[in-house]
Amino acid sequence: MKNKLNLVLNIENDFVIPVNDIDIGKDFVLIAGPCSVESENQTLEIARAVKEVGANILRGGVFKPRTSPYDFQGLGKLGLKILKTASEETGLPIITEVMDVRDIELVNEYADILQIGSRNMQNYSLLKEIGKIDKPVLLKRGMNSTVNEWLNAAEYILLGGNKKVILCERGIRTFDWEYNRTLDLNSIPIIKSLTNLPIIVDPSHGTGNQSIVKPMSFAAIASGVDGLMIEVHNNPKQALSDRKQQLNLGQFKILSAKIKELYEFTKTLNQ
Amino acid sequence: MKNKLNLVLNIENDFVIPVNDIDIGKDFVLIAGPCSVESENQTLEIARAVKEVGANILRGGVFKPRTSPYDFQGLGKLGLKILKTASEETGLPIITEVMDVRDIELVNEYADILQIGSRNMQNYSLLKEIGKIDKPVLLKRGMNSTVNEWLNAAEYILLGGNKKVILCERGIRTFDWEYNRTLDLNSIPIIKSLTNLPIIVDPSHGTGNQSIVKPMSFAAIASGVDGLMIEVHNNPKQALSDRKQQLNLGQFKILSAKIKELYEFTKTLNQ
Amino acid sequence: MKNKLNLVLNIENDFVIPVNDIDIGKDFVLIAGPCSVESENQTLEIARAVKEVGANILRGGVFKPRTSPYDFQGLGKLGLKILKTASEETGLPIITEVMDVRDIELVNEYADILQIGSRNMQNYSLLKEIGKIDKPVLLKRGMNSTVNEWLNAAEYILLGGNKKVILCERGIRTFDWEYNRTLDLNSIPIIKSLTNLPIIVDPSHGTGNQSIVKPMSFAAIASGVDGLMIEVHNNPKQALSDRKQQLNLGQFKILSAKIKELYEFTKTLNQ
Amino acid sequence: MKNKLNLVLNIENDFVIPVNDIDIGKDFVLIAGPCSVESENQTLEIARAVKEVGANILRGGVFKPRTSPYDFQGLGKLGLKILKTASEETGLPIITEVMDVRDIELVNEYADILQIGSRNMQNYSLLKEIGKIDKPVLLKRGMNSTVNEWLNAAEYILLGGNKKVILCERGIRTFDWEYNRTLDLNSIPIIKSLTNLPIIVDPSHGTGNQSIVKPMSFAAIASGVDGLMIEVHNNPKQALSDRKQQLNLGQFKILSAKIKELYEFTKTLNQ
Repeated sequence: MKNKLNLVLNIENDFVIPVNDIDIGKDFVLIAGPCSVESENQTLEIARAVKEVGANILRGGVFKPRTSPYDFQGLGKLGLKILKTASEETGLPIITEVMDVRDIELVNEYADILQIGSRNMQNYSLLKEIGKIDKPVLLKRGMNSTVNEWLNAAEYILLGGNKKVILCERGIRTFDWEYNRTLDLNSIPIIKSLTNLPIIVDPSHGTGNQSIVKPMSFAAIASGVDGLMIEVHNNPKQALSDRKQQLNLGQFKILSAKIKELYEFTKTLNQ
Repeated sequence: MKNKLNLVLNIENDFVIPVNDIDIGKDFVLIAGPCSVESENQTLEIARAVKEVGANILRGGVFKPRTSPYDFQGLGKLGLKILKTASEETGLPIITEVMDVRDIELVNEYADILQIGSRNMQNYSLLKEIGKIDKPVLLKRGMNSTVNEWLNAAEYILLGGNKKVILCERGIRTFDWEYNRTLDLNSIPIIKSLTNLPIIVDPSHGTGNQSIVKPMSFAAIASGVDGLMIEVHNNPKQALSDRKQQLNLGQFKILSAKIKELYEFTKTLNQ
Repeated sequence: MKNKLNLVLNIENDFVIPVNDIDIGKDFVLIAGPCSVESENQTLEIARAVKEVGANILRGGVFKPRTSPYDFQGLGKLGLKILKTASEETGLPIITEVMDVRDIELVNEYADILQIGSRNMQNYSLLKEIGKIDKPVLLKRGMNSTVNEWLNAAEYILLGGNKKVILCERGIRTFDWEYNRTLDLNSIPIIKSLTNLPIIVDPSHGTGNQSIVKPMSFAAIASGVDGLMIEVHNNPKQALSDRKQQLNLGQFKILSAKIKELYEFTKTLNQ
Repeated sequence: MKNKLNLVLNIENDFVIPVNDIDIGKDFVLIAGPCSVESENQTLEIARAVKEVGANILRGGVFKPRTSPYDFQGLGKLGLKILKTASEETGLPIITEVMDVRDIELVNEYADILQIGSRNMQNYSLLKEIGKIDKPVLLKRGMNSTVNEWLNAAEYILLGGNKKVILCERGIRTFDWEYNRTLDLNSIPIIKSLTNLPIIVDPSHGTGNQSIVKPMSFAAIASGVDGLMIEVHNNPKQALSDRKQQLNLGQFKILSAKIKELYEFTKTLNQ
């Protein structure tokens, strides 16, 4: 570590972040939901389905950081209301991304966990403001950020006073573009050796390819993560974003059962 | 180009951005100044020195995006006032970075050109707001952004109505960390073949190493750029940021004379 | 796949490579041993220890591709004899690297599997000659080779007539050098979807760090590999090469027991 | 430098390698010719044309390292004879690649400079054998080799006794694959600061794109190189390899005139 990281390196030993009925960092957390909130029907159908098979938290993007300004930019406040409806019906807490300091207050009203996306991992204005609120924050790794830079980004939030930081590995950018993404699982045990912050993996963005989400979910669990965040859609081929990487409801059902089994088994291995 | 880029690709043929007495995109522009504004004395001394040897625009950071929260974060509004004083004394227009949508109005009051830094190249909230103002914007390439992503970021600004976009190549991140940075000059003729937006190079960040700023400035000019942005400090070894890459006043004096000569010569080559 | 890969893509469905009493591609294979063969005592001690806890094949380098010409270059033919002695005593088949076309005949006399190292993955003269022999070949991925280039290298060997190719993922080179290596497990299910060639993982080179070999071995198994190759040394701190990444005998003993358990469990998950 | 590099770092001050009538390292050297030798007619036509406009050395591949075994593998010995014929007619010395230790003797009979290609930069058997011959060697940088690894490869050759090593930067592999290659010109002044070995640039492989070979040739010269190696073909669109990056004869004629002018001008800048 080239920089001092007093807070990240000294998070106390049995650090957990309670969200609803689970303790993130202690209990395995399964976050699932669509890339983008597209409509109430879509979101409700997905929320009910993932709840039924064991998801603990509902994800869904309403402010979308898109490479092109002509791509779908998200439903904004309407999307937050849809998420709230889905949450009330299913009992699932909500996680969604905030991209703009001016939206923090609004998102904070609706969401149970605020997400900082990869492209904003070094948006220091945003990190500083997020440090002032009292809600869990999921901090995704930038797609070309080193482990050290990632932990420094966490330090910005912790320094502001918010100690509820959850890290999320989501793949990095390398020379091999044929198959698009490289999920850096080496980072999991390295992060675990440096800090007690919980860390989860997003195999959907980490692969960009629904056909290998299952084995990479298994690999992530075996590497020691505290949870997974998986994109699930009721009709991936018609999705308004990330069509190639979202699982359909049937795929997620099969996967979620096996995830819990493997997690329990892995715990016995590490005893 | 995978995405439609209507505006970037259709900027009219003889596109120039007037700033003070020069037309960026037609005249060669030399931007110089310290990484960070540290004090009035420091900034004035540097401003006078770079003006005397031919710089056209004064740079200086007041809001600093730093990897660690414990590093110097910039002087903020006080820094803007110092830049203004230096501008009034020397007649040099000012460029400085804006990192936060809430600071745009303030920075816009003081600066002649607003800079979007590498870490914010995909901060789409910021790009959209910058698209609404009527001042030139320097858009730095993200350190792992493809040419296509960079042009899409420019498209966000153009789509907002602001057509005064200047691109700035500043080096990318690759596997070779021993010498730190890779200045991607291939991007210059590629960008030139795709758009008429002016493009300059920042050899200070593009090398991270003052000892090779001179040859890489020459290389950038020979590759066809419209200008250079170079970090210059009156005492680099004591600088509050970027100590290894800033030129001292004597080095800049020698370099600036040669830059103009080479630029003129290169024009004859391309006739 | 940009290139035609007739042979790689058409390896028959239940492709297995018998080595001694196991069928690679069907049975899980655990390869273990020192980075370099250093002496008879060292090699015998390690061979006995890894055999006792379940290793199926003994590895050990005798021709070493070293970045610097001043580093230990391996024992050459003497090393092969030592490996043979260890093999005869323990019954373990031997795998060792061949770097030079002129050494193939010699190595072929002693080794049960010939290894092509990362730096030679695109040494086409070597691949063509290896294609002519009738022994299993372990083809490591180049550290900046794409999946497509890797499969094309396998095609060179298959085209020569040798169908006994085992692939080995060993980590790639990315921008993050602080922790040195990135083990690209995404490649495992991708390779599995494209060919029936067996594929194993080398978590020692894939991490460069003995302290995370265990979790990454688990992750590799969960991702679906056919085996692991792990560097084990009786005294890693005094090793003549790769000191940071070799497990000691005690670490390997613990790991090998858990590996087999996890492999068996993972098979039930995928039924 | 992490490794000791006694020989590379201590090459005497005014190190030059005489080839025919020029002193490489002192005089600017322009190497030109086709990617592959395809026929006597093709090679002779190109050789005459490049000679006429100022090329000093003729290049042409006869042993070709191709990603796919189904791609054109080169004419081998017949190609060497064709090169010899072209050399005798035009007076141009010849450079060609050697990939296999068993071919060194043969290539050495025909070629004036032997080339080690990117894929073989860490083929240490080849480097050691090349170290034993008494002819200039052009050592290309591996496409993901660090500067340190490249200099260590040169050290292997020097240690064998051959002091006539010319380095050649040819672009590295990065995350940006849309435009294919990144020519790392930062390496030129860095190499110049570490050793007195001559260094040239190959802008054809460094760009992969004939349309930007001209500006990148200019940039390379301005960065301080000792020469250029450029692929030229009489009919690039029908070439058996590298169709996108070879210049036609007319393009090369224009470029070669300007190259010399710029080189002379650049020398005055550095006085």
